[in-house]
Amino acid sequence: MGGDHAPKSVLDGARLASERHPDVRFLLFGDEARLAPLLEGRPKLAAVAEIRHAPAQVSADEKPRQALRRGRNTSMRLAIDAVAAGEANGIVSGGNTGALMAISKVVLRTLPGIDRPAIASVFPALDGQSVVLDLGANIECDANNLVQFAVMGAAFARTVLGKSRPTVGLLNVGEEELKGNDTVRLAAQMLRDVELPLEFRGFIEGDDLFKGTTDVMVTDGFTGNVALKAAEGSAKLYSQHLRGAFEQSLLSRLGYLLARSSLNAMRERVDPRTHNGGVFLGLNGISVKSHGGADETGFAAAIGVAADMARDRLTDRIIEDYRRFGGPREASEQSAASGT
Amino acid sequence: MGGDHAPKSVLDGARLASERHPDVRFLLFGDEARLAPLLEGRPKLAAVAEIRHAPAQVSADEKPRQALRRGRNTSMRLAIDAVAAGEANGIVSGGNTGALMAISKVVLRTLPGIDRPAIASVFPALDGQSVVLDLGANIECDANNLVQFAVMGAAFARTVLGKSRPTVGLLNVGEEELKGNDTVRLAAQMLRDVELPLEFRGFIEGDDLFKGTTDVMVTDGFTGNVALKAAEGSAKLYSQHLRGAFEQSLLSRLGYLLARSSLNAMRERVDPRTHNGGVFLGLNGISVKSHGGADETGFAAAIGVAADMARDRLTDRIIEDYRRFGGPREASEQSAASGT
Repeated sequence: MGGDHAPKSVLDGARLASERHPDVRFLLFGDEARLAPLLEGRPKLAAVAEIRHAPAQVSADEKPRQALRRGRNTSMRLAIDAVAAGEANGIVSGGNTGALMAISKVVLRTLPGIDRPAIASVFPALDGQSVVLDLGANIECDANNLVQFAVMGAAFARTVLGKSRPTVGLLNVGEEELKGNDTVRLAAQMLRDVELPLEFRGFIEGDDLFKGTTDVMVTDGFTGNVALKAAEGSAKLYSQHLRGAFEQSLLSRLGYLLARSSLNAMRERVDPRTHNGGVFLGLNGISVKSHGGADETGFAAAIGVAADMARDRLTDRIIEDYRRFGGPREASEQSAASGT
Repeated sequence: MGGDHAPKSVLDGARLASERHPDVRFLLFGDEARLAPLLEGRPKLAAVAEIRHAPAQVSADEKPRQALRRGRNTSMRLAIDAVAAGEANGIVSGGNTGALMAISKVVLRTLPGIDRPAIASVFPALDGQSVVLDLGANIECDANNLVQFAVMGAAFARTVLGKSRPTVGLLNVGEEELKGNDTVRLAAQMLRDVELPLEFRGFIEGDDLFKGTTDVMVTDGFTGNVALKAAEGSAKLYSQHLRGAFEQSLLSRLGYLLARSSLNAMRERVDPRTHNGGVFLGLNGISVKSHGGADETGFAAAIGVAADMARDRLTDRIIEDYRRFGGPREASEQSAASGT
């Protein structure tokens, strides 16, 4: 029921995802009276989907605590309960991010050693991709949180990017060691001093987000959210100017027609909707947040991310990685004990 | 002497700016031994420029306090002193932002009612432009700072955008009133409650930065700096993908040739280098920071901004605006006294 165009965009997204991932089955949580006719009109989806009626829904402007207090009534809560019960392998929602995070955290619980889960997403670069987190789950973060994000992001990058020892950068206003606020400076010191299953490369800047400078890029949720949306806004402006340029003259229109197929292929590659899907890392279960404004393409991409994570048993892998290497605190104690 | 390609990029930028602004004269502060041969090779610039030898320079990784302690030795300090003495109408520097801000603040002093100056820049949107601040001067900001940024940004927008009552938005992770951290929520409350010479439109998000949603967009310097660079990185990635698309086939190459002149005109419009130039608002004098990585086009744009500000007597206008309406505190008292 969550997202600007829900529930239609959600069902259309599920139908699209179903074509790409024929092994995926759907539990649709929401108002049965609204969902049933939509599902009837999509017979292929109906064959692999089941409606679970939820009498209430979390609204976009509801406070996380308020959403939590409403108990097991809401579609969001019932869907997360299904993940906790092992009935579903993961949840995908386009709804209230704060509520999704709060309920996921309470119901699924955080992994051992993790104080706060984070939202991660895979950003495109010219030659490769990077995992960026946190994209909005934690508005205020201390240095410990940032270090935990680095460890979780590295585990995620090992799986999704296939890097055995991912490089990690910490987002700041400059690359020099003395730049930034106390929080990022302390986090950088911890990442330098403590032995972790990652290669810390120091501070990176906003433009590095799309350069693939490091495999993992760590920031607090306020900065990450604004940076992501600023980048989307800038790309959109660029593409609108481009459209305008092609419409400027007869020659440029003809030029567009000739280059159209290459341009469409490019548009697909840079389309933020194909990269849609924020992953909550640090939970005992798969919980994926789709962009609230996503259309069916975006929602299908988010479902695809969840399906890939489930197939790869990503949560188990993160737990294993985290256990094998210990959290930053354990690693810190080990390194202190061994005198290094 | 400041910036990645200084002093050559600075002199080439001055030469370019001199062609566009024939009324502008230059005082070039730096190492005379390095500047003199460069200036000799640019006779047209030499006719309107004068070298002022500075025995030292502020380095990129120097702490602001350290730079301040070096006294009147550095090119940056001597240039700012010239502004304070009325010898120059403004300073343009591509050097260390923190040092430029610290020295400008100490030498030029802040305007009455302003605790901290901010870096503002004009962002392009499809139909119009917006003033965005702070872009990196103040890494940590409280609600009062954000309110002052709103007032200064509105004064700047009245001059550069010609709006009599600029609209102002506060950057956040969502538009709903309860989103964000305590600082932005308190600042929003102050902007709503206090009578100011602006129209507060509430919270805006990262993608609004390039939509022209409001005339002025306010944020702290950490978020603003990262968002600006993230947007630049995203636009650069888009343009690289575009180049790749045109090179993909014979047809697309032909298409590019036909559309080339329209595309070049567009590139000029979206080129961040033509929008280069961050303005320090809130000081008794004009101080403009050019992007450290700027080439001559970028540096010339920054000089152009300073020249326009000087011609418009912008600092006087901000003082007048600020006096006429009072600072937020005075306005608050007025509104309390008048019982509204």
